[in-house]
Amino acid sequence: MKSEKYNKGMEIIKKISGKQGEQVFDAINEISPDFAEIVVEFAFGDICSRPGLDLKSREIATMAALTAMGTATRQLKLHIQAALNLGCTHGELVEIMMQMAVYAGIPAALNGLFILKEVVDDTDIRSE
Amino acid sequence: MKSEKYNKGMEIIKKISGKQGEQVFDAINEISPDFAEIVVEFAFGDICSRPGLDLKSREIATMAALTAMGTATRQLKLHIQAALNLGCTHGELVEIMMQMAVYAGIPAALNGLFILKEVVDDTDIRSE
Amino acid sequence: MKSEKYNKGMEIIKKISGKQGEQVFDAINEISPDFAEIVVEFAFGDICSRPGLDLKSREIATMAALTAMGTATRQLKLHIQAALNLGCTHGELVEIMMQMAVYAGIPAALNGLFILKEVVDDTDIRSE
Amino acid sequence: MKSEKYNKGMEIIKKISGKQGEQVFDAINEISPDFAEIVVEFAFGDICSRPGLDLKSREIATMAALTAMGTATRQLKLHIQAALNLGCTHGELVEIMMQMAVYAGIPAALNGLFILKEVVDDTDIRSE
Amino acid sequence: MKSEKYNKGMEIIKKISGKQGEQVFDAINEISPDFAEIVVEFAFGDICSRPGLDLKSREIATMAALTAMGTATRQLKLHIQAALNLGCTHGELVEIMMQMAVYAGIPAALNGLFILKEVVDDTDIRSE
Amino acid sequence: MKSEKYNKGMEIIKKISGKQGEQVFDAINEISPDFAEIVVEFAFGDICSRPGLDLKSREIATMAALTAMGTATRQLKLHIQAALNLGCTHGELVEIMMQMAVYAGIPAALNGLFILKEVVDDTDIRSE
Repeated sequence: MKSEKYNKGMEIIKKISGKQGEQVFDAINEISPDFAEIVVEFAFGDICSRPGLDLKSREIATMAALTAMGTATRQLKLHIQAALNLGCTHGELVEIMMQMAVYAGIPAALNGLFILKEVVDDTDIRSE
Repeated sequence: MKSEKYNKGMEIIKKISGKQGEQVFDAINEISPDFAEIVVEFAFGDICSRPGLDLKSREIATMAALTAMGTATRQLKLHIQAALNLGCTHGELVEIMMQMAVYAGIPAALNGLFILKEVVDDTDIRSE
Repeated sequence: MKSEKYNKGMEIIKKISGKQGEQVFDAINEISPDFAEIVVEFAFGDICSRPGLDLKSREIATMAALTAMGTATRQLKLHIQAALNLGCTHGELVEIMMQMAVYAGIPAALNGLFILKEVVDDTDIRSE
Repeated sequence: MKSEKYNKGMEIIKKISGKQGEQVFDAINEISPDFAEIVVEFAFGDICSRPGLDLKSREIATMAALTAMGTATRQLKLHIQAALNLGCTHGELVEIMMQMAVYAGIPAALNGLFILKEVVDDTDIRSE
Repeated sequence: MKSEKYNKGMEIIKKISGKQGEQVFDAINEISPDFAEIVVEFAFGDICSRPGLDLKSREIATMAALTAMGTATRQLKLHIQAALNLGCTHGELVEIMMQMAVYAGIPAALNGLFILKEVVDDTDIRSE
Repeated sequence: MKSEKYNKGMEIIKKISGKQGEQVFDAINEISPDFAEIVVEFAFGDICSRPGLDLKSREIATMAALTAMGTATRQLKLHIQAALNLGCTHGELVEIMMQMAVYAGIPAALNGLFILKEVVDDTDIRSE
């Protein structure tokens, strides 16, 4: 039986991520079910579900950080998808990545934009 | 005579940053007036003034990135001040930094929170 | 009433960190009691208390990572103290930091060694 | 004729890395034989062969750092293989990477775990 | 009609980058024509065209930074090509990357050298 | 008796760094004489003394990397001093740091410029 925190976390995950999110969690689960549970409880049950900041603002913060860091392509893709699911427009995502050019440099922004294009192209293909 | 882009940039700077922002620009100006001008034109005239994303969301993105990177204490302080000037609450800033614990690690989040505390303490002292 | 995970986490904290660790937790608690609780539960209750790797090896991993990242001086100081409390010798800590010269560059290793010297000098002064 | 330091370094390399290690050194040698020699002398002859820390602890430190940095996939793969050759269990490697979630964020830990899975899957295929 | 700054930037781009550079700019243009224009104006019109440092020294600085950061493979490839176009020899590029082993670690240097080899191999194939 | 490599390295160090360089080496020597020796042999004897790239270009690469990384203030100060000793002008150093704004973001460039100003102010005071 899972903890209350886990169930709260899973609710958020279902809300923000589509099939790709589930696939990533299945992949983590296969490597370490314990870590999959900790991620759900900590990242989503503890942090993302907190009332002090809306989910859309959390996704803006997350995408900005992942774009600036430049070391988490896989996670950036998931969060781009999540942001679109939460009502961010494609144009807003472009702006967040352009904003990163100022603070983390042009290459970080460009890599973010190229990853965004990949996600959007994939979604277009799947939805045809 | 300054470019239109420069004037547009300076308008944003005055809107979002108080005296500390002006002091930083004076310091940059002393080292390289050319670079001070480029920063105003590029960061504020070109990027931050774009209509596709509101200034508050831009500050959320910026603070998240600077907290995650952990290499720009001085700039993070300015942007905390800017975010407060733009109507972010102290509680929202705490949430943005806590969100970074998930994506950039606990030390990055803690350092962000300690810097936030410093800015808030300084502001309290100055406003007494 | 605190969760079982919190109590398990606090036990580890008491075991590995002395007064400095408690002071840091008091400082976090002052900024955000919620985050202090999440850190105890996640970092120490969930992860560090797991049986699959001994605490000393966890400290080696942590110090190596913090030295390589170079953005978490405060936390590196705490973990140097923790490693010494867990039975790591000063010489082993020097070796871990020298090892980082290979993977993260000479400056990262040197900064780690200078921080180590600071902690050791502080401890010597306090224990006189 | 190679230096004593080089021979000492090569001994360590043979001890810790299998065929993949040799292939990487052949690749470096093809680009710059001078650099291949410097890497052997410095990384392995000077640092890794030092008596003050056992090789297994050095591998824990190295894997933690490479996982936290997130910019050296190729080298992380080699060191996962080396750690397994030195007697680290698969479970211990999972723990080291989970530990990184605390200090470098969930994405860094997940990317480490996915790379670990790749190495293990490759080894299983080759050993069939 | 484009700004004077844009035209000055485009002149530099044509001077330093061949077809690959144009292809990247076409790709950026497809995602965001505004950002393509800002990149040309800021990176090339404002900064790289300044008289205080010759273009070859700017490329040395850029390649060193991108190699040390390790998060911008695509851009490093373009700048290797640009450096070769500006008269840097292959041997000098090898030295710049080896220099990074000291400051950013052996993996950063090796990844730079492997990317250099890829660019050179690609150029050889195309020029056959 | 020191190795030939050590002596070659020390010659370079004396050439490029003044009293501050010696003080840093004394500080490293106090913590670990072995590491001091390895740094001289590897960084200066093996790499910086190589004929394929002139010392001034090596300093440009080093300063660019340290400015972009943003985690090595102490070392950046030494290399600014070394670059000035090798004949780089103050204006060229400003340009190298401005160049980093494009690739590592405005905060990295600004921090580099502020550190440069500190070194120059210190030198002015000492030379009065």
